[in-house]
Amino acid sequence: MPIEIERKFLVKNDDWHAQATEGVRLIQGYLSADPHLTVRVRIQGDAAVLTLKGGSRGISRLEFEYPIPLADAEEMLTALAVFPPIDKTRYLVRHEGHCWEIDVFTGANAGLVIAELELARPDEPFTRPDWLGEEVSGDPRYLNVNLARHPYGAW
Amino acid sequence: MPIEIERKFLVKNDDWHAQATEGVRLIQGYLSADPHLTVRVRIQGDAAVLTLKGGSRGISRLEFEYPIPLADAEEMLTALAVFPPIDKTRYLVRHEGHCWEIDVFTGANAGLVIAELELARPDEPFTRPDWLGEEVSGDPRYLNVNLARHPYGAW
Repeated sequence: MPIEIERKFLVKNDDWHAQATEGVRLIQGYLSADPHLTVRVRIQGDAAVLTLKGGSRGISRLEFEYPIPLADAEEMLTALAVFPPIDKTRYLVRHEGHCWEIDVFTGANAGLVIAELELARPDEPFTRPDWLGEEVSGDPRYLNVNLARHPYGAW
Repeated sequence: MPIEIERKFLVKNDDWHAQATEGVRLIQGYLSADPHLTVRVRIQGDAAVLTLKGGSRGISRLEFEYPIPLADAEEMLTALAVFPPIDKTRYLVRHEGHCWEIDVFTGANAGLVIAELELARPDEPFTRPDWLGEEVSGDPRYLNVNLARHPYGAW
């Protein structure tokens, strides 16, 4: 099972936008937000994915992901989500050999923009783009499940 | 979404066995037993299925079922099940135009044998085989999720 190392930052300004790919809308919600079992549904364009994650065991976490029909995902998000789904547009920005994911939130999290970088190992070096702001990797408020539970607009 | 009408009975004796198909072992466990969302994993021979069920809304209930790899199912049942999985062998018995499912439980539910009949409508007539015992359709103790939570052996 691969271990994800992800660093998460705020952004200082919109300068990243000039280098970004076209945005892709992501809608994701949680059918269970229990720490023992997270059940997430994500819609990305016409594709939908169901993800089950177990509780954390040290730095690893069991994760199972299955493609599901779009209609099922829509029905789950409408009828079974425990919080209103998160709605965001994801842009990709290449910067000196790394690919940044920039998530621009709308809805209850409007105003929030997060830049994420996935690394192969914790000490992998990377250069910080000029538009990069404060690191929030350790702040649980920025976890997607917590942004669903307690959106940025209510902070 | 189809509505399941299922009647559930105890059996009086083993006379059903002479007419039964070969048994198929079923192992099933629950990753969530929340009334709002049940997440069930079932292994039947080499096949595994993940089922999500929403809370009851009147007599209907949202249900989504997906085949998953056997190895995923085994890992889920080992690491994420909230109760020890149910272990039973299912036999089919045809009787005057209906197909009965007879579940013989082992493990913590050993001693329990349940006969189930699925009907197309609530008032569909059927003949009771001689071996059929007391009806337990309305008794929540016999729900699979409750047999996992509070097994027959502990009654």
